[in-house]
Amino acid sequence: MYKVKVFVTLRESVLDPQGTAVKNSLHSLSYQEVEEVRIGKYLELTIAKTDRDLDVLVKEMCERLLANTVIEDFRYEVEEVVGS
Amino acid sequence: MYKVKVFVTLRESVLDPQGTAVKNSLHSLSYQEVEEVRIGKYLELTIAKTDRDLDVLVKEMCERLLANTVIEDFRYEVEEVVGS
Repeated sequence: MYKVKVFVTLRESVLDPQGTAVKNSLHSLSYQEVEEVRIGKYLELTIAKTDRDLDVLVKEMCERLLANTVIEDFRYEVEEVVGS
Repeated sequence: MYKVKVFVTLRESVLDPQGTAVKNSLHSLSYQEVEEVRIGKYLELTIAKTDRDLDVLVKEMCERLLANTVIEDFRYEVEEVVGS
C-alpha cells in the first residue's frame, strides 16, 4: 500500500485572489510580517499495491483530474506503507 | 525572510465528502487502485524577518485563521530564505 501526497499550487504567473484575501485578514489580525500568501490543495491518496508503474499512475491522475495544468503545477511524494 | 508551508487537513474522524467524490471520479477514470482520498489545504506564506518567535507566530495564525481546529489539524514547515 502506498500513501501519496499531492501538492497542487497555482503557477507563479497566476493571480491568487484567495491568497490575497487571507493575507489581508492576517494583516488585520496584526500579523504585518506576512508578505505573501499562496493557497493550493493538498491531497493524500491511499493506493493499493499495483502492477502498474506508480509514478506514471500518479502523474496521469494529476494531469487528468487533480490539477488543471493550464494554471496549476503539481508535485507529489510517494511513501510505501509497510505491513499492509 | 522565511517561507512557511502550512498543511491543513481534516481530522481522521471527520468525513471528507469532497475526497470521496474525487475517489469516485478516479475510479470512473479506471484508477481502481485508489482506496482513499483526503483533501486538505496547502498554504505557502512568505514572512519577513521579525523579532517575534516564528513558531508562536505561525501557530497563532493557524489557530486564529488558517485552520478550523474543531475539525482540522495543521502542521507546518519553516524554511529560511537566505540572501533576502
